[in-house]
Amino acid sequence: MSRAAVIIAAGGAGRRMGGVRKQYLELAGVPVLARALRPFLDHPAVEWVVVALPAEDAADPPAWLTALDPRIRIVAGGVERTHSVRNALDAVPPEADVVLVHDAARPLVTLDVVDRTFAAASRGLAAIPGVPPVDTIKVVDRDGLVRGTPERASLRSAQTPQAFPRALLVEAHRRAAEEGLTATDDAALVERYGGDVVVVQGSPENLKVTGPLDLLVAEAILRRRGP
Amino acid sequence: MSRAAVIIAAGGAGRRMGGVRKQYLELAGVPVLARALRPFLDHPAVEWVVVALPAEDAADPPAWLTALDPRIRIVAGGVERTHSVRNALDAVPPEADVVLVHDAARPLVTLDVVDRTFAAASRGLAAIPGVPPVDTIKVVDRDGLVRGTPERASLRSAQTPQAFPRALLVEAHRRAAEEGLTATDDAALVERYGGDVVVVQGSPENLKVTGPLDLLVAEAILRRRGP
Repeated sequence: MSRAAVIIAAGGAGRRMGGVRKQYLELAGVPVLARALRPFLDHPAVEWVVVALPAEDAADPPAWLTALDPRIRIVAGGVERTHSVRNALDAVPPEADVVLVHDAARPLVTLDVVDRTFAAASRGLAAIPGVPPVDTIKVVDRDGLVRGTPERASLRSAQTPQAFPRALLVEAHRRAAEEGLTATDDAALVERYGGDVVVVQGSPENLKVTGPLDLLVAEAILRRRGP
Repeated sequence: MSRAAVIIAAGGAGRRMGGVRKQYLELAGVPVLARALRPFLDHPAVEWVVVALPAEDAADPPAWLTALDPRIRIVAGGVERTHSVRNALDAVPPEADVVLVHDAARPLVTLDVVDRTFAAASRGLAAIPGVPPVDTIKVVDRDGLVRGTPERASLRSAQTPQAFPRALLVEAHRRAAEEGLTATDDAALVERYGGDVVVVQGSPENLKVTGPLDLLVAEAILRRRGP
């Protein structure tokens, strides 16, 4: 079996939550970050876990986090998500065949989504989970005028974890650093340098917690899942 | 003030809800369709209200619906959403300057979103509410391989109501009928025939109820809004 490392991007300063760092908020009694970690800790291939925290928190991490699992290593995040992932990637040993990158803000990720992306990356592909967007998507210009309506069947809402053969992700981040490039997801860097990325089936429940409304939604999903 | 008609597309047969017609489901004690109607009934410019129901329901509509407001007129929907809207449009009198088309599946729409789209259409523009997509959007080919990542700043998730000068919408539907064309939203028809469409500010809460999870979310939002 391929040997996997997981990077959790938890460097967010909570700008959209009024300074509240959502990675530490409790969701039905468990911190968001702990929920985001769980299915990776449960996956048999994951040997290394690197968590990128805001720099000041990395120097003095929450006790519950360091106590959670001996595989967890903490690094300081950067200004942008891309920088945080790059710092974490530097802490991934070359023995890792596959690297999974996951947003701490997706606490409802499940083992089956983790395993689908891992399995594709084990076969040498860059793989991301995706679902068809619920709403029609419009392309707009700077004035808000619609320039086009792409076929919905040709679109996917990208989620995380995004999984990569380690060398592919390292090379994409090396070139992005040279260019001073950042992106909202790691797959975009691989795409930019000509790498193939495949979309595997994500889950509508694997939502991103970006504001107070999403916390309500996440709680409702957890209630439905049961204890 | 421009005189407005509203079309509510409520012709869905509930295929994604196991045959349950979600337009009649109660959301915190009020049918989804009644909630979707409310801000239009409250808007001072709305003089005509046409609701497209599944054909068998149009012949025998729910008593609460016909009792809700004297402006409500019911028509039979068609196979696709586009057909339902077209049937409803036939029932809109030529005195209407502006036509708003709204999905019954968006029960959390608010008066301010209705008014923003109405105001833009009153000035002669086709207008739709939109919000930036939360997730990164990927363009994929038939094999699920990523073909590109459009800049997120250039994308909007389209919502309803979509508002149009009446003549513009009538002409777009007439040409679409000739071509046998359907679309997931009415703006796409106007775009196809060269009309300008502007995106106004929507609301993250104006979600589309497409499955059981969305009902939970909608209830959570309503609880937060309070009585």
